[in-house]
Amino acid sequence: MITVFAGGVGASRFLQGLVQAVDPADVTVISNTGDDVEMFGLHVSPDTDIVLYALAGAVNPETGWGLAGDTFAVVDQLQRFGYERWFNLGDRDLAMAIHRTRLLHAGIPMHEVVAGLARAWGVGCQVIPMANEPIRTKVYGPDGEIDFQEYMVRMRTEVEVRSIAFAGADTARPAPGVVEAIRDAEAVILAPSNPFVSIGPILAVPGVRDALASTAAVRAAISPIIAGQVVKGPAAKMLQSLGHEVSAVGVAAVYRGLIDLMVIDEQDRALAPRVEALGMRCHVTDTMMTSAERKAELAAEVVREARRVPRAMGQ
Amino acid sequence: MITVFAGGVGASRFLQGLVQAVDPADVTVISNTGDDVEMFGLHVSPDTDIVLYALAGAVNPETGWGLAGDTFAVVDQLQRFGYERWFNLGDRDLAMAIHRTRLLHAGIPMHEVVAGLARAWGVGCQVIPMANEPIRTKVYGPDGEIDFQEYMVRMRTEVEVRSIAFAGADTARPAPGVVEAIRDAEAVILAPSNPFVSIGPILAVPGVRDALASTAAVRAAISPIIAGQVVKGPAAKMLQSLGHEVSAVGVAAVYRGLIDLMVIDEQDRALAPRVEALGMRCHVTDTMMTSAERKAELAAEVVREARRVPRAMGQ
Repeated sequence: MITVFAGGVGASRFLQGLVQAVDPADVTVISNTGDDVEMFGLHVSPDTDIVLYALAGAVNPETGWGLAGDTFAVVDQLQRFGYERWFNLGDRDLAMAIHRTRLLHAGIPMHEVVAGLARAWGVGCQVIPMANEPIRTKVYGPDGEIDFQEYMVRMRTEVEVRSIAFAGADTARPAPGVVEAIRDAEAVILAPSNPFVSIGPILAVPGVRDALASTAAVRAAISPIIAGQVVKGPAAKMLQSLGHEVSAVGVAAVYRGLIDLMVIDEQDRALAPRVEALGMRCHVTDTMMTSAERKAELAAEVVREARRVPRAMGQ
Repeated sequence: MITVFAGGVGASRFLQGLVQAVDPADVTVISNTGDDVEMFGLHVSPDTDIVLYALAGAVNPETGWGLAGDTFAVVDQLQRFGYERWFNLGDRDLAMAIHRTRLLHAGIPMHEVVAGLARAWGVGCQVIPMANEPIRTKVYGPDGEIDFQEYMVRMRTEVEVRSIAFAGADTARPAPGVVEAIRDAEAVILAPSNPFVSIGPILAVPGVRDALASTAAVRAAISPIIAGQVVKGPAAKMLQSLGHEVSAVGVAAVYRGLIDLMVIDEQDRALAPRVEALGMRCHVTDTMMTSAERKAELAAEVVREARRVPRAMGQ
């Protein structure tokens, strides 16, 4: 069994490859819900939905999020009632939010909601939210606290992030199945997602870090930073503003002690010794997921390399 | 001031005429919320929305309900999650439901919600829901209780209605402004709506019937039945199955003691003496609202005739 800690776009592309490389029934995704947001009174789970849409083959390939061919009649019309249009929720995407909101209001726990959504989309792997309790990622800029989607979408990440917090994490518990998926896995893979706001919230759920520390599984991560830049999102800017090196080494340092294997891009081959100096194996390959074939090859390669890492090194 | 008790399509057409005939600022609409329904977890107010859309000039002219040119992406997509498609809520129509639901969940009373919606649509007259508390119209057929929208939309009214009830009416109160609008009006007009399931729920709110009985206003009704048939909806079938005459006389009998003036169609001219025998004036005119001009003429005529009825007759 392979367990993947997943954020949004980068993770979803890796997962598209992974379910080609291995039996989807052997894959468990632990999804970040720290970027969930209430929008127009509806519960929206951006990262979880990106993963579900991508695994269903329905994601908008141009943006990496939302549904291919979606329309925007509802959010357009909501402006009549004073709502701002910065959060671009498509009509079919919004149907999912309506359904999720109704179930949550009826008292259905999030992990059951997500399992039902995965079934509705014909997703063959298990997708589990990191926690059933609401956890909200907050970033702190020069002017104080900012809700994550405000920072990410409305402000287009154009503010210096000085610190990050996960409101509600202290009293949350891993959703049913999360600890087991980490404990019983052959490999736990931290997807090429933002280490601070995609993987970070999952690690902030009490018990997850311990489960990752004590599992017999090999733990691997794929760097979202390639040649000092990020494919998508604010990971590079955050490494910079939070005082880390903006490179695969910087990412590896964030995960130091938590992972056994770091996968970095060929363009960063020269960094491999510095990564290994952090106490982990380093595998170098082409990590740009530019085609369906390359996604599957990368996933297969990560799984294969994880199997080669001696377990002793992972403990 | 003119106060109108309003159901859906028939009422909305009459109101379109009324706001041409008199200053909209002098018109207060008391709207039926008995057909409100929770659909996909959203609060939908079919009759109130028909009235608002019609007064905003935005209603779908072909159906008489919903918004002109609306799309159906959300309800189409909701089928993926197991929802049935019988309730045809358009995307832009659904935006209104999303907004209303959010406000109600936030504790805003319905009369403030509706006032805000009317402002958002640029509606010049006052629109007040009959009550802030939920009241749900139930019809009883051979197999027992049926929610109103189930009966109206899903079953296409194809069941014999043996009785009607208004769940929640006993403990409801007229929304702020309702009693005043009846008490202080020059005329109170029962729109050409279904007497049982459009006007009936308004009359079922404790205090409304008394306000109508004690007002100094002249009280008028327009028959929704013309030549033994109804323009739209199940009024004729209900008159039949509930044991009333299927005619303007049957409608007048239902309103007996509550109104001073009954307006009937020219095709029913021969019924006028029988209507007047019920203790009310009867005015005969063309009540088919087939054009914008005819709507305005009918409304002007109803107001003019109401002014001619001696107040004494109304007491």
